[in-house]
Amino acid sequence: MEKVMKEKRLSSILFIVVFLCGSTSMAHKPFRQLPQPCNHLVFYFHDVIYNGENAGNATSAIVAAPSWGNRTILSGLNHFGDMVVFDDPITLDNNLHSRPVGRAQGMFFYDKKEIFTAWVAFSFVFNSTNHKGSIDFVGADILMNKTRDISVIGGTGDFFMTRGIATLSTDAMEGEVYFRLRVDINLYECY
Amino acid sequence: MEKVMKEKRLSSILFIVVFLCGSTSMAHKPFRQLPQPCNHLVFYFHDVIYNGENAGNATSAIVAAPSWGNRTILSGLNHFGDMVVFDDPITLDNNLHSRPVGRAQGMFFYDKKEIFTAWVAFSFVFNSTNHKGSIDFVGADILMNKTRDISVIGGTGDFFMTRGIATLSTDAMEGEVYFRLRVDINLYECY
Amino acid sequence: MEKVMKEKRLSSILFIVVFLCGSTSMAHKPFRQLPQPCNHLVFYFHDVIYNGENAGNATSAIVAAPSWGNRTILSGLNHFGDMVVFDDPITLDNNLHSRPVGRAQGMFFYDKKEIFTAWVAFSFVFNSTNHKGSIDFVGADILMNKTRDISVIGGTGDFFMTRGIATLSTDAMEGEVYFRLRVDINLYECY
Repeated sequence: MEKVMKEKRLSSILFIVVFLCGSTSMAHKPFRQLPQPCNHLVFYFHDVIYNGENAGNATSAIVAAPSWGNRTILSGLNHFGDMVVFDDPITLDNNLHSRPVGRAQGMFFYDKKEIFTAWVAFSFVFNSTNHKGSIDFVGADILMNKTRDISVIGGTGDFFMTRGIATLSTDAMEGEVYFRLRVDINLYECY
Repeated sequence: MEKVMKEKRLSSILFIVVFLCGSTSMAHKPFRQLPQPCNHLVFYFHDVIYNGENAGNATSAIVAAPSWGNRTILSGLNHFGDMVVFDDPITLDNNLHSRPVGRAQGMFFYDKKEIFTAWVAFSFVFNSTNHKGSIDFVGADILMNKTRDISVIGGTGDFFMTRGIATLSTDAMEGEVYFRLRVDINLYECY
Repeated sequence: MEKVMKEKRLSSILFIVVFLCGSTSMAHKPFRQLPQPCNHLVFYFHDVIYNGENAGNATSAIVAAPSWGNRTILSGLNHFGDMVVFDDPITLDNNLHSRPVGRAQGMFFYDKKEIFTAWVAFSFVFNSTNHKGSIDFVGADILMNKTRDISVIGGTGDFFMTRGIATLSTDAMEGEVYFRLRVDINLYECY
């Protein structure tokens, strides 16, 4: 009887062990369930694009354009081909004048003639008491959608090797000079 | 005798457990075996580069070039430094006129004077009954090689957080105006 | 007594098994400990930027600039917006004339008016007896820092699907024509 009990107990333990191993192993197999985020962060960033008259305030500038465009005014055809380099303040709320917690640095370019859409590649570079390090983003930013997902492809410092999804939404837009993006970051790989 | 048998059986079970765990554990150690893909996809995409005379058909345009180049005609030195933004239709077969299942949006630039090679960064943006979401690619595209591998670094929607390898091959090339790439995507991380 | 011993031994084995599984399982949970690298590599790469007078030696060229800049001379405001495409030799030591083991191909752009900083996106393309394949990098390169981390976001061939961190340091800088970077690569995902 005692032996049977012991065997049963042993089986249970083994079952748990196998289960634990199994579930880990599953993590590398197709069509696993969506994981829970290991970190969630919300930021805003603010872009003031150079237009020939706002050198003092501008945080970004057109650096490339198709042959029919120029580098001072965004071109026609939904700005197709206009490429913008930016260094935008990141804030915790939607106020341009709040104390920045870091900078969004990178570039985007408009990439469709028929509608307004862009491709983005940038990093959040933090240097605050809360966060040190950087988060790297790339992806298609389908500007006319209320929310759109891009990829978090890496990070350094506090965000060492992270991966996840960032959901962008345009929080404000004033003509072609100022826009503010809300960025909801869900990280699924944290160290 | 019975005890010995039980111990042996136990050892076997433990061996299997250890083996299972071990192999999973290996997944994070160097020089593990190549995994099997969890998804395999094949697409074609079609690029018609703007050359000053094809504004109606062009799906891409030169937006940057070195000082010796211009933005209408690809420059000498194997187009070194010419940067192209594109919005190309993706099809399931090699026919430009097939119904697109999405758009390849991004940029590439030629990056060697001596031979014809490029660096690419783009997304496949799907919006079909079969696929919703996007896949993000970057990498060196050594154009003179029949096939060349680039990295799948992320994705959204159906391709949430995916990673893998895309093998590019030039399926057709007509002068410096049209090219068609075949893209064999092997995904190794699927959710 | 013998039974107790056996149970103890069993417990120890199970503990080890559970520990092994546990540590693997942890690898996908938040706030895990920093892993050990599965590969460490050190390279140097050498950039000679085109300045209008060094066409023969130049390994890179300005291809885009803001409207106040040009593509022959790096612009003011800490070169904000100047974008450079490069094809730089990679060497194992800090000697420009050592036999290259591959090429660093990609681009960077300066992205801050107040200080000297850049955003980089490039690949190491190897073709040596030691390494075949490529490693892909992106990230914010805060040039004034002695060392700065960027993300390794993928790779092909020998570096299939790799991820990790690359630590850049400026090993030499001669005016605005030549710079040499040391790249310490720590890979944490190897296949």
